Amino acid sequence: MTLGLVGVGKIGKGILRRLAAAGHTVQAFDSAAAARADIVAHGGRPVDSLASLVMALTVPRIVWLMVPAPAVAEAVTALTPLLEPGDTVIDGGNSFFKETRQRAVVLAERGIRFIDAGVSGGVAGAEHGYALMVGGEDKDIVAVKEVFAALHAPEAFAHVGPSGAGHFVKMVHNAVEYGMMQAIGEGFALLKSGPFPDIPLATVAQLWSQGTIVRSFLMELTAKALARDADLQDIAAYVEDSGEGRWSVSAAVEAAVPFWVNTAALYARFDSRTPEAFSAKLIAALRREFGGHAVKGKND
Amino acid sequence: MTLGLVGVGKIGKGILRRLAAAGHTVQAFDSAAAARADIVAHGGRPVDSLASLVMALTVPRIVWLMVPAPAVAEAVTALTPLLEPGDTVIDGGNSFFKETRQRAVVLAERGIRFIDAGVSGGVAGAEHGYALMVGGEDKDIVAVKEVFAALHAPEAFAHVGPSGAGHFVKMVHNAVEYGMMQAIGEGFALLKSGPFPDIPLATVAQLWSQGTIVRSFLMELTAKALARDADLQDIAAYVEDSGEGRWSVSAAVEAAVPFWVNTAALYARFDSRTPEAFSAKLIAALRREFGGHAVKGKND
Repeated sequence: MTLGLVGVGKIGKGILRRLAAAGHTVQAFDSAAAARADIVAHGGRPVDSLASLVMALTVPRIVWLMVPAPAVAEAVTALTPLLEPGDTVIDGGNSFFKETRQRAVVLAERGIRFIDAGVSGGVAGAEHGYALMVGGEDKDIVAVKEVFAALHAPEAFAHVGPSGAGHFVKMVHNAVEYGMMQAIGEGFALLKSGPFPDIPLATVAQLWSQGTIVRSFLMELTAKALARDADLQDIAAYVEDSGEGRWSVSAAVEAAVPFWVNTAALYARFDSRTPEAFSAKLIAALRREFGGHAVKGKND
Repeated sequence: MTLGLVGVGKIGKGILRRLAAAGHTVQAFDSAAAARADIVAHGGRPVDSLASLVMALTVPRIVWLMVPAPAVAEAVTALTPLLEPGDTVIDGGNSFFKETRQRAVVLAERGIRFIDAGVSGGVAGAEHGYALMVGGEDKDIVAVKEVFAALHAPEAFAHVGPSGAGHFVKMVHNAVEYGMMQAIGEGFALLKSGPFPDIPLATVAQLWSQGTIVRSFLMELTAKALARDADLQDIAAYVEDSGEGRWSVSAAVEAAVPFWVNTAALYARFDSRTPEAFSAKLIAALRREFGGHAVKGKND
């Protein structure tokens, strides 16, 4: 098939390579000139604008979006007037599922099909294939099944529901990932600071990825990171979050689903970015007020 | 080698089978007659008391304990006067690491070697081998290395520190397991009760064990359980805990290590066993007091 790819970043490059390797003709665009320069090397045909991309496609057109969540709205707004009824847009990014749902309705009014695809697998997915969680109309998904077939790892494709469901499932996936990562992080912190000061952390992580109940891809990555430097000396205790954790907590609140651990994992990330936590200052101030406890001054 | 095995329960049976398959002669005892009746079928030689067990062993003796944590003290107390300097006791159970540390000191005074082995792998370990986290003196461990070699899966053996460290590492392993399980449980609860009512949970779990970042043994088990019944209709929302989670939280508190997620996972288990939560009653009562909010009566 011939299709268009918008976004040739870290994951987009892998998507491009797999599509090209499967024999698809991929017209690819990225708003960054540096990313565009890489397209040929990854098997794609570079175009210099969304308009050229749409022009280069055969009808009915297929366009795969692989841009950061905040850039999806702009890309869809720019693409919509260029597309025709019967064309298909696939959003492979981590968009907020409510926006995806609205977007599908708006595009459907113009006869444009919209499919949301949650993509997991990280950078390694380029080689092994991705896991795809897909939302949308069954017939629309079937019509582009060769595109999905080129991308997913064996048995790693699922149509999980109507528009938005793919992004919703991927969002919850990432919330679970936050929780699992925090569980692992706390465990190793306790091993490091508990009563046995010389536990070989890299060895333990390696052992825990072999035959124990907690064996997992994340534990394998833990073993790899700790083998490089068991003290993680060059890494700051500062963790970003990229949206799905927050949206998941909001969705849990809306549905009144207890979400203790995955919420705490998100808050732990916020905490890691709050060295001057106002809550801690206030508690210290209160302890001084009621108990005369000494406070630690800013420069102590 | 010839060695003794005390405890032929669920895990003990697997231990026995692997030791026998490796050519070791295993004199085995269990306080339950029903478990004793199984010993021959699993390749062991049944004895009817700890005294007979010790009599049947060659000097220096090796005794592997595979009994529930609360029964270890009694077993060690009963064994100690029967053993001699140079004999070795290995505790393969989930004992509290502080008791293990004390036990090693008490036995060392009599010249008896004590090794603690955290054993992970569950029932499947009988076939694939266990992961072993071992604490104790290096020379004592080397002296019984053939015993460990018969039990562990490839690359799944580690000497992690002095007496108690094996049980400590296994304890933290289980705390991480609690956290990971709760993260997964909450994720599927949100998938089930969120805005998309028909998400195929078993399919998602299967997908999440293929190629995604959260792929793990626990996710594979999740897929298996949900494939059997995606509503888990026959399973009560009631989760036991077996000690290691509590001890880990205490250890984290002692070391002042933030342990949010793994603590919350333990509390979630308590909560599952508290349908008449007094805290919830009190909060309902307070809402009525200050805001005139209706309370739900016990029989509403």
